[in-house]
Amino acid sequence: MKLGLFGYGTIGRGVYTLVDNIKEKYNLEMKKVFDLPQKKDQLGEKLVTDVNDIIFDDEIDAVIEVLGGHDLPYQVITSCLKKGKSVITANKEVVSMHLEEFINLAHENNCSFCFEASCGGGIPVIRPLIDNIKVNDVNDIFGILNGTTNYILTKMDDEGLTFDEALSLAKKNGFAEANPTADLEGLDLVRKINILSSLAYKGNISNDDIYHYGISGVTREILADIRKRGYILKLVASSHKEGNNVSIRVEPTMVPIGHPLSAVKNEFNAVLFTGSTNGTLEFYGKGAGSIPTATAIVSDLVSIIENRSYIDYKNENKLIVNENKVNKGTYFVVDRTDKISIEANLTDEQLQAAKFYARLLSL
Amino acid sequence: MKLGLFGYGTIGRGVYTLVDNIKEKYNLEMKKVFDLPQKKDQLGEKLVTDVNDIIFDDEIDAVIEVLGGHDLPYQVITSCLKKGKSVITANKEVVSMHLEEFINLAHENNCSFCFEASCGGGIPVIRPLIDNIKVNDVNDIFGILNGTTNYILTKMDDEGLTFDEALSLAKKNGFAEANPTADLEGLDLVRKINILSSLAYKGNISNDDIYHYGISGVTREILADIRKRGYILKLVASSHKEGNNVSIRVEPTMVPIGHPLSAVKNEFNAVLFTGSTNGTLEFYGKGAGSIPTATAIVSDLVSIIENRSYIDYKNENKLIVNENKVNKGTYFVVDRTDKISIEANLTDEQLQAAKFYARLLSL
Repeated sequence: MKLGLFGYGTIGRGVYTLVDNIKEKYNLEMKKVFDLPQKKDQLGEKLVTDVNDIIFDDEIDAVIEVLGGHDLPYQVITSCLKKGKSVITANKEVVSMHLEEFINLAHENNCSFCFEASCGGGIPVIRPLIDNIKVNDVNDIFGILNGTTNYILTKMDDEGLTFDEALSLAKKNGFAEANPTADLEGLDLVRKINILSSLAYKGNISNDDIYHYGISGVTREILADIRKRGYILKLVASSHKEGNNVSIRVEPTMVPIGHPLSAVKNEFNAVLFTGSTNGTLEFYGKGAGSIPTATAIVSDLVSIIENRSYIDYKNENKLIVNENKVNKGTYFVVDRTDKISIEANLTDEQLQAAKFYARLLSL
Repeated sequence: MKLGLFGYGTIGRGVYTLVDNIKEKYNLEMKKVFDLPQKKDQLGEKLVTDVNDIIFDDEIDAVIEVLGGHDLPYQVITSCLKKGKSVITANKEVVSMHLEEFINLAHENNCSFCFEASCGGGIPVIRPLIDNIKVNDVNDIFGILNGTTNYILTKMDDEGLTFDEALSLAKKNGFAEANPTADLEGLDLVRKINILSSLAYKGNISNDDIYHYGISGVTREILADIRKRGYILKLVASSHKEGNNVSIRVEPTMVPIGHPLSAVKNEFNAVLFTGSTNGTLEFYGKGAGSIPTATAIVSDLVSIIENRSYIDYKNENKLIVNENKVNKGTYFVVDRTDKISIEANLTDEQLQAAKFYARLLSL
């Protein structure tokens, strides 16, 4: 099988290396790689600088998209699927926005669309979830699905760094982008929990309807106070369905020490989902990084080669997202005068008026 | 697709219920159930009391074996595979002993052999492991894979019960058998870690070569001492490969508080494996119980229906198991006079001479 790769950045290079490792076993050839002309030194003749050189190459059966961003990936994915090429992507932004369209195009053109790497990096999450919902109803999903924020919170909590020190360290070690706003405010988690929820609940969800509140306001003092109460602070994406009413929220969450999510540190991620028949499952591992993410991508590739790929999504439920006016549950609230209180049943407006808040998770 | 079920005990009834839930969606019929004549009241016309009524029924395409034990399951599985029927089993005893034979029979007769439920109950473990080793070398496996012992240790540690009280409670709540010796001494774990290791290392392993030491000697005092040192005691199966040398051990293990395995309580199980490219993955969930185990079985069934089943095992490595004379590592040792010491690099004989011992796991 001949392959095309869109993007030769951190993840692209990982994919290139791993495909090279298994090319004899599966008879693979990475025929063309799309990137900027500057990559000529590294890629030589394989480099193409026009996406159409891959899209219209009839020898290429499957492509891997790791460009990042929205517009070009969307164009590349739809064009490749229309040409009957299977597509593997790690791009949570386009998957969270166009999942139904991509899956339908793959069905219509008799090819595959796979996106295991879009949630949880190197952790298998998408496939176990899809397997699960074939025999189960999954109505609850919890996840620590962002390496940047989890790394910062761990360094502050375990090593006593300030927020700024932890953020600098994260940048230095490759766990935060130069502009980390989308991570810190929870937007990255919005996209991931959208993908998981859409699959589990079989309906379309707009990223705009998902509530999110970030960790920029957290201090060492708040973390110490939370720990004294027997909890650890994590930025958690949670999703819950009751009938067609869905609540999907990304917010700082106090996880009881001893809860499976409390042991998730640094760049590790974890997803927990609860099925109607087999209870709660947790999947844990490296949620970011070149080679772990590339492992998930190449695992998708092998499933396509072996005809075991998993495209399976139907938009069959009309979901009503975050219509509740008052959030049930208990909250740790730091007000504008730094007074801490524990309060129940607050509105989003009340929560956002606080200097910082966190939701309490029960064990 | 018409199905046959061997065994209508706790798990068999769970399978029956779950198949009933999805029979329209996948066009399934549970045609015959093998069990003793006493089950006539519950099963009516579906009951057969001769296994050959299923084996030689050419309308039945797939069977589920949940009899337990060795001899009859072995006969049933081999006979069904030879007739071209796909087989799904939860039986770790026969799978750990005859994996290669079953897989070869399935290949020769163009059918599937699936055994997700044999390790970790309702947790997907086998499939993610098989997916992983296609792109990765997995050389380390750790697991809390026995509900009985984990339930007892949790009740002793968290609620201060004595060993006998915890064992009684486990029996009362259905988490321990009337004769719990195989669980308490780690034999159940031997079989499960054998299956996982054989798959990961692509070689045959005899259960007899796997070292095991149980938890019968544990006391509340020992658990309290271990906890004061910052650890939690768990019965852990560990497996490590270096070249063709393999070390596979089931023994009481001190897990540092904060380690992902430390949060695994009661009847929950967890498996951790470390891949060469994507690092450590953990899978966590209910390791026992009728419906969780049945969920894994029915998930296998759906993968067979959808042509996505995963039979894939080659005995291609000649493994040398537990040849090391001295065990590297650090041990917590309670001697016959109740004196506690921390010692390194002990032989199996030295370990077994202790009143109780536990291995220290590093974070």
